[in-house]
Amino acid sequence: MDDLSHSSSFVAKKDPTLEILKMLGINFGLSVAAGFLAYYLMKQYIPIFIQRKLYGFDQCKSEKLPVPEPMGVIAAAVYLIFMFLFIPVLFVQWIHEEISFPYVRLLSLLSAIISICTAILLGFADDVLDLRWRHKLLFPTLSSLPLLMIYYIAGNSTAMLLPVFVREFLSTTYLDFGFLFYIYMGMLVIFATNAINIIAGINGVEVAQGLVIGASIATFNIIQIFRLEHSLTWYQGLSLCIIGPFLATSIALYILNRYPAKVFVGDTYCYWAGMTLAVVGILGRFSKTLMLFLVPQVFNFLYSVPQLFHFVPCPRHRLPKFDSEGTKKLSMSLVQFKATDLGLLGRLFVWLFSTFGILYKREFMKDDERWIEVNNMTILNLILKFTGPVYEYQLTYFFVIIQLICSIVAFIVRFYIARLFYEVVN
Amino acid sequence: MDDLSHSSSFVAKKDPTLEILKMLGINFGLSVAAGFLAYYLMKQYIPIFIQRKLYGFDQCKSEKLPVPEPMGVIAAAVYLIFMFLFIPVLFVQWIHEEISFPYVRLLSLLSAIISICTAILLGFADDVLDLRWRHKLLFPTLSSLPLLMIYYIAGNSTAMLLPVFVREFLSTTYLDFGFLFYIYMGMLVIFATNAINIIAGINGVEVAQGLVIGASIATFNIIQIFRLEHSLTWYQGLSLCIIGPFLATSIALYILNRYPAKVFVGDTYCYWAGMTLAVVGILGRFSKTLMLFLVPQVFNFLYSVPQLFHFVPCPRHRLPKFDSEGTKKLSMSLVQFKATDLGLLGRLFVWLFSTFGILYKREFMKDDERWIEVNNMTILNLILKFTGPVYEYQLTYFFVIIQLICSIVAFIVRFYIARLFYEVVN
Repeated sequence: MDDLSHSSSFVAKKDPTLEILKMLGINFGLSVAAGFLAYYLMKQYIPIFIQRKLYGFDQCKSEKLPVPEPMGVIAAAVYLIFMFLFIPVLFVQWIHEEISFPYVRLLSLLSAIISICTAILLGFADDVLDLRWRHKLLFPTLSSLPLLMIYYIAGNSTAMLLPVFVREFLSTTYLDFGFLFYIYMGMLVIFATNAINIIAGINGVEVAQGLVIGASIATFNIIQIFRLEHSLTWYQGLSLCIIGPFLATSIALYILNRYPAKVFVGDTYCYWAGMTLAVVGILGRFSKTLMLFLVPQVFNFLYSVPQLFHFVPCPRHRLPKFDSEGTKKLSMSLVQFKATDLGLLGRLFVWLFSTFGILYKREFMKDDERWIEVNNMTILNLILKFTGPVYEYQLTYFFVIIQLICSIVAFIVRFYIARLFYEVVN
Repeated sequence: MDDLSHSSSFVAKKDPTLEILKMLGINFGLSVAAGFLAYYLMKQYIPIFIQRKLYGFDQCKSEKLPVPEPMGVIAAAVYLIFMFLFIPVLFVQWIHEEISFPYVRLLSLLSAIISICTAILLGFADDVLDLRWRHKLLFPTLSSLPLLMIYYIAGNSTAMLLPVFVREFLSTTYLDFGFLFYIYMGMLVIFATNAINIIAGINGVEVAQGLVIGASIATFNIIQIFRLEHSLTWYQGLSLCIIGPFLATSIALYILNRYPAKVFVGDTYCYWAGMTLAVVGILGRFSKTLMLFLVPQVFNFLYSVPQLFHFVPCPRHRLPKFDSEGTKKLSMSLVQFKATDLGLLGRLFVWLFSTFGILYKREFMKDDERWIEVNNMTILNLILKFTGPVYEYQLTYFFVIIQLICSIVAFIVRFYIARLFYEVVN
């Protein structure tokens, strides 16, 4: 059910309504203000972070100077302040309409803010306390419960339109995943909150991910607002309104975090960004399209599985190696282990990855035993396998280009390839 | 409007419904579990806090050992987890009723959680970063906007029933404060979030306030559930459900924070507790009764005004003085200044307070100038003025007794004295 689909607020089919344009205009203005405020406040808090001993050391620089961390918490706080101001702006027009008040819309927004706020709290606590893994998985799962419940209350579909050629086999047009779809959304939330955190550690790379994926979502929202029926556009607009200030505050953070980094973003930014992306995907009913934007993150996760689950030995840090004496460039970081240390699955993964050419592998003899050396299984090391040693800022650029290409491919898949399988593309 | 007042869920007037009793039963069970979980997790995190250098030193002990701080963040996180689990439990019964779904109730609860979650984030950031005052005031104000907006949407009254003898003068029974009432609620939120933070610094005193005020609110809610018409009881029940797990996790924290403190609660606890109390007061429509429970905090604030606004010199710390060499007891901390340093208002306050016997004052000559010595203006120092030096745990007890007496007086005022001015007491 869309709780206002019968209202007169919307003018004509496929026309972006004045309402939505007005709301986007205000949002844009406030977003710009939020970006400037975030930049100004972060600059102010740099000495305070140093004074409170909240800093890390840049692993990829010759000079080890303290860099304030987690500065993401300031950007996130500004973001929240902005959202609190924006809620009344968005809903004041209906405030006297007891019957036609869009309760479900407000519920959706509030539950989204709860998830985002909780992710910020979790990230900040993780930065300060180094939380345990099981606590880090439990918290975002539970904090997304309100969001999923309201998805249910709103009567959103959990059915998937089947591709034309599959329909014949299953003799049905839609496949209703029901409860499984909620499991999927819960997993999406957990995945997204951690996805950005895994590709981290070189200047600018975390915020760059947030910016590219966020901008892709915003572009998608804008396309959909102009393409879709009126009853669906509001949630696309809402998604855009949640992403707008996120992009603005992220840009402010990026300016300080890009090479050479004056601040570090911390887990706070990664969790905040991941949760914001997941939440708009669910709210805007495009969680499957979102997965297309997250392909580099999904790839990185799958590529990391052998080390994350310890089928292959995993050192504490898997960052690319910085040559602080010589070239000042980054190269793949490597891990060495005895061939006999690998179990069956470990051997399988190493064979599979090296056969497909996505793993550097060298065998050598030491103390009469066969040793194996492979690169640490992260997308950043994989890029370095192909490019050879590069400067830190170059590595970030290469990664951003990959993320951008994936977004472009995602749009092609979403709007053109999908035509081959469905007669109508939403 | 109460969005379910016409539903059949409620049986008879003045009977607490089965619905509410069931919801309270589940809440009670989950609260107990939350209390145990909080205790267990806090014990686990004690060494982690020390390792991460998150600790303070106890000013009122001879041995200066590091005490983990802010442990309130763990209790608060468990509280949030509990609330996330409880939301679906509370609303699952209506989940298929599109028309009669109590949207406003769910909105109220979600906006309450947003305010509470934001207060926890603010408190934790303040513990770690020592935020500036203006940032600390801005954040809770904005985070309570959704709550106040939903108070408006719910069509709650902003009118006050006038005492009988006033009605004649004003020729009206109700006085509608309109927008002013929202200003009042906003101020209540700011006041409450900071109220507990001001009476702090000796073992157990912060949590003890939270416990006494929280228990008073719970008692008030239970009385009202049995007394009131059915349409009003649900929000009393909701208030009880928000306070229940707060009390349980606070008890767990109190066990570790009482004299001699194994952990410190931090600003995190103070903001969390203050916001939770304010939020239930607003949600349960008893914000004026809440002020009666907060009398010691209001008194402490008014008593502190001369120092807070620097009419009287204010040292950085105003904690009672610990005699670490001799008696191991606490006595009033004092501040000395030249008589000529006081402005007009400063002289007025010192004269007023000492005339009423609530300020220790000594005058003496130094370097041919007249100096004045007074106690720091906090309720803890005032207690010590009357009791003389006592042990730390005794001071906490004295304060708790005062808080308890105020609660008892509050109940008498609320239910008996009010009869003298109103013909009906709600």
